[in-house]
Amino acid sequence: MLKTKLCELLDIEHPILQGGMAWVADAHLAAAVSNAGGLGIIAAMNANGAQLRQQIHLAKEMTNKPFGVNVMLMSPYVEEAAAVICEEKIPVVTTGAGNPTRFMAAWKEAGCKVIPVVPSAALAKMVERRGAAAVIAEGGESGGHIGELNTMALVPQVCDAVSIPVIAAGGIADGRGLAAALMLGACGVQMGTRFIVADECTAHDNFKEKIIAAKDIDTIVTGKRLGHPCRALKNDFSRKFAEMEYDMSVSNEELEQYGVGALRRAVVDGDLQGGSFLCGECAGLVKERMSCRQIIEDVVNGAQRALGGASQWL
Amino acid sequence: MLKTKLCELLDIEHPILQGGMAWVADAHLAAAVSNAGGLGIIAAMNANGAQLRQQIHLAKEMTNKPFGVNVMLMSPYVEEAAAVICEEKIPVVTTGAGNPTRFMAAWKEAGCKVIPVVPSAALAKMVERRGAAAVIAEGGESGGHIGELNTMALVPQVCDAVSIPVIAAGGIADGRGLAAALMLGACGVQMGTRFIVADECTAHDNFKEKIIAAKDIDTIVTGKRLGHPCRALKNDFSRKFAEMEYDMSVSNEELEQYGVGALRRAVVDGDLQGGSFLCGECAGLVKERMSCRQIIEDVVNGAQRALGGASQWL
Repeated sequence: MLKTKLCELLDIEHPILQGGMAWVADAHLAAAVSNAGGLGIIAAMNANGAQLRQQIHLAKEMTNKPFGVNVMLMSPYVEEAAAVICEEKIPVVTTGAGNPTRFMAAWKEAGCKVIPVVPSAALAKMVERRGAAAVIAEGGESGGHIGELNTMALVPQVCDAVSIPVIAAGGIADGRGLAAALMLGACGVQMGTRFIVADECTAHDNFKEKIIAAKDIDTIVTGKRLGHPCRALKNDFSRKFAEMEYDMSVSNEELEQYGVGALRRAVVDGDLQGGSFLCGECAGLVKERMSCRQIIEDVVNGAQRALGGASQWL
Repeated sequence: MLKTKLCELLDIEHPILQGGMAWVADAHLAAAVSNAGGLGIIAAMNANGAQLRQQIHLAKEMTNKPFGVNVMLMSPYVEEAAAVICEEKIPVVTTGAGNPTRFMAAWKEAGCKVIPVVPSAALAKMVERRGAAAVIAEGGESGGHIGELNTMALVPQVCDAVSIPVIAAGGIADGRGLAAALMLGACGVQMGTRFIVADECTAHDNFKEKIIAAKDIDTIVTGKRLGHPCRALKNDFSRKFAEMEYDMSVSNEELEQYGVGALRRAVVDGDLQGGSFLCGECAGLVKERMSCRQIIEDVVNGAQRALGGASQWL
């Protein structure tokens, strides 16, 4: 059994978190990942308090294992979401898209462990000072909104900067990635893309098929001009976005407007042309559909195979 | 001793290549790395045949160990450089900035092992079919011209695509990076940034000091609009470039013109404002000056420490 200090910290069997992917990470996926021994996470996204509470209650019906909630700090309902998390005594809160320090005292008081996603050593240090239980060092290989640094360089620099546990994310979809993360000094991984194709994930079949079919070069980053670069699969929508981005006759407002509703169109409607299929560079490593349990077993077994080979170099 | 099949293939002691950095990777650095048991590499850059031959002869005076030459395929003198490599019977040729297949037959006939830098699984497969001895899978964490994919996602996908040895590059500056690369399936690493601060490197002291002082977030990618993104340390030159890039009143020609001579100004003149200090995301991991021998020992020892810890997870 591959146990790290993260397992003890979060009361989970395997050191694997499921990313808080917008529209994808619902109660069904989170409960399935937690039941399989990882840490499932519900994405609060732009849900209001009542909607988030409903997802939390649904997940509690489906699992008695711990699960987390991911708070998107730019959400208009972030205050409501933060309060619901305290009331529901969610054991783990991950945060994205900003600096979570203003909520951390309340969450900690409610007994939540706070694990911010950080794109740099400086933010990791800041949240450690405010009482973060761990950090997720997420490289730009990931899907969705990304930072400037990439996993191989970011993770060791964050590990050098803080004493709390570091979870690696970005570009990790199999056991080799988990083993590599451990070598860099992390004590676990967060995976997003690989869980999109899980049997228990409610994302549209077209999304799952697109990931299974993807090659390494099939993602693209757009939105840098707007200050929030975002990685998605290449399709009509994302190629058009990239074109508009370097066309200065297109205003920033038009560019923003072009993106509205595109995530929903991808995940819920499976709109192959008009949807934004957020997805990491590791899509090319994802070859088949499995249950969450099979995915986690495959990753853990693969990591142990890779780690088992280490002795040949000693 | 950390031995992999790469050591046997290239007749080197340690599975570490030194990157073919423009203006930096000269005979002095290459000979020092080779003498320390890695594979030193001379960057042919835009040198003509006579200039390259002079560097090769100089390196041969300084080491009797094997060293390589890196060919920049966009060089106006690429044909001359390719011929000199054959005549001088250089044991290892690495290539960058394009598809090297038109030269591969001649190099192989002259006994050179060809190791192209590849940014994708498709190019890795193509050069394998043409007889490449290995490939360098280089992620966008690296300094200088970069591809779309990053190390953590690229390396396992290239390993799955080819049967020849894979060398990982991008974001690797210490033993943790080497250990992680091995877990991903690579059999060695190429490092650039770490060797810039080597005692034997003739780059300007200002460049070395800037790397030693760099934090994780101190590099920036520019040139995407021109189709050749390039990573460098943040300074007046690179910030101005980034600004001009999104200013559509600036033509592509003006943008190209702005960059002319900037590498030389950085490496040779140490021009802190006007130079382009090409450098990878791992600059923040590089904390002190050492000899090439100390650098290689530090990386190998660090990798063995990390790999030695693997047994705790089995």
